[in-house]
Amino acid sequence: MAITVVGSVAYDTIETPAGRRERCLGGAATYFSLSASFFCDVRVIAVVGEDFGPEQEAVFRARGIDTKGIEHTAGKSFFWEGSYLENLNEAKTHNTELNVFAAFNPQIPDAYRDSEFLFLANIDPVLQRRVREQMPDVKLVAGDTMNYWIKDHRAALTEVLKGLDVLLINDTEARMLAGNNNLVQAARAVMALGPRFLVVKHGEYGATLFHAAGPKGGTAGRTFRAPALPLEEVVDPTGAGDSFAGGFFGYLASQKELTPGAFRRAMFYGSTMGSFACERFGTERLQQLSRGEIDERFHLFRELTHLD
Amino acid sequence: MAITVVGSVAYDTIETPAGRRERCLGGAATYFSLSASFFCDVRVIAVVGEDFGPEQEAVFRARGIDTKGIEHTAGKSFFWEGSYLENLNEAKTHNTELNVFAAFNPQIPDAYRDSEFLFLANIDPVLQRRVREQMPDVKLVAGDTMNYWIKDHRAALTEVLKGLDVLLINDTEARMLAGNNNLVQAARAVMALGPRFLVVKHGEYGATLFHAAGPKGGTAGRTFRAPALPLEEVVDPTGAGDSFAGGFFGYLASQKELTPGAFRRAMFYGSTMGSFACERFGTERLQQLSRGEIDERFHLFRELTHLD
Repeated sequence: MAITVVGSVAYDTIETPAGRRERCLGGAATYFSLSASFFCDVRVIAVVGEDFGPEQEAVFRARGIDTKGIEHTAGKSFFWEGSYLENLNEAKTHNTELNVFAAFNPQIPDAYRDSEFLFLANIDPVLQRRVREQMPDVKLVAGDTMNYWIKDHRAALTEVLKGLDVLLINDTEARMLAGNNNLVQAARAVMALGPRFLVVKHGEYGATLFHAAGPKGGTAGRTFRAPALPLEEVVDPTGAGDSFAGGFFGYLASQKELTPGAFRRAMFYGSTMGSFACERFGTERLQQLSRGEIDERFHLFRELTHLD
Repeated sequence: MAITVVGSVAYDTIETPAGRRERCLGGAATYFSLSASFFCDVRVIAVVGEDFGPEQEAVFRARGIDTKGIEHTAGKSFFWEGSYLENLNEAKTHNTELNVFAAFNPQIPDAYRDSEFLFLANIDPVLQRRVREQMPDVKLVAGDTMNYWIKDHRAALTEVLKGLDVLLINDTEARMLAGNNNLVQAARAVMALGPRFLVVKHGEYGATLFHAAGPKGGTAGRTFRAPALPLEEVVDPTGAGDSFAGGFFGYLASQKELTPGAFRRAMFYGSTMGSFACERFGTERLQQLSRGEIDERFHLFRELTHLD
């Protein structure tokens, strides 16, 4: 099955204790696509400027990702500069240039319309909603957002949440969105806004999957916690959350039935892909990965958590 | 088998978002003993003042804990006052009175000397060492410490670490002790100081067990992550870490053989006991607990983490 993803394709300048990289290929849709491409077909909707050429396109093509929906326009691509010098768990943003993203109006290629899975990566909720409305018949919709949209674009975000099956956010965002510091209570409040499933990412401590109670109350799927891999060296955490989302949603899209077991395994594949993303700068590790390595690490996660 | 534990038996005044309690029975040795008492025999070494009477003693006795090693002396018991109004993960200390603990010189009753397990709860490393030296033949020694001893009593603490098999500390303490922010590297550095096993507690995100490589390098036990239970309401986190230690070490003391599997299950029992401790003020929940409830929650932890 295929996922259509809308989000940023960008250039990032990144500084971490391990070094500095200028203008490497990045953006939420890029990390998500590369990660999900190991599990299913992926189709991207994004906008890029004149600085995005055949070399960058080739990164997507090498993983079989459909780039028909990447619109090329006059101007420069989205650009982000950040560092993690003091805290590897949280980027310090030095510069954000929306550039061609400022006037982006996502168009869905006809060839994407039979996608059964839709991922709305972290962009303006107005754009997320526009894409969602153009694909009303998908089987499962997941999305991401961030503190900026939660704080200052609440109304637009609320509309997006109504159309989501799964929301993936981090601890701080979940607590901010719910206005509640207790994770369990916050999760319940967030799911009351729309998504049946909530994945809360805890950075180096893993992630928790919450499942809302059914209409009659008693049928809530169990809560599930996936660890993160204790890594000897985190070279660059940029894109780890989007890579998690790609592994999680890509694995779900590869499954015939969305059973509770499939969701639990998807959490492990999410953690697996997030751990790889941190091992090299930018998308370097995701570009060089094999499915064998992925499954080997999946089993490492099992060893890390299972009693027997 | 029996554990001897040395540590504080104290009174705590605690304020949390759920309310306030004046002078409730507390102290690391108290939480540890109550928690471990569900798994094995427990013998306490501590000092208390004239404010510690039959009513407090009865709390230990009700759980079959041997209190012969609790020395009664003139003066007031150790007293701590703290609050968790802004952050349930970290206490703000308002007052610490050592009182009778200031002149404490731990004596080991003869009846304790055949204990096969020894736990050195968080107290002055000089006292920890004195107890350790008086019990040279125990099978397994575990201990705890805190930022204060790490920062200002490094030399004494280093001597204690040499005599430990297992150290249980939190993230901040592990990073401070190693002078390294990467958890994996910090764990290796801490284990090089003595303990073969290191349990790093992550508060609401669970705990990680590290096992040092054997003398020939290749025989390191696998790393293991136990979650914490996502709790609907944390009434009072005081003593959660000591209760974790009691469940962890108590379970180990109940096992014939200290296999890798026993250590993994001990991590789950640690998390289990820590989660109960948070549900009521002070030791209230531990006093009312049954082994049936403990095993039920152990299975909940399995469900929370296991794929199948």
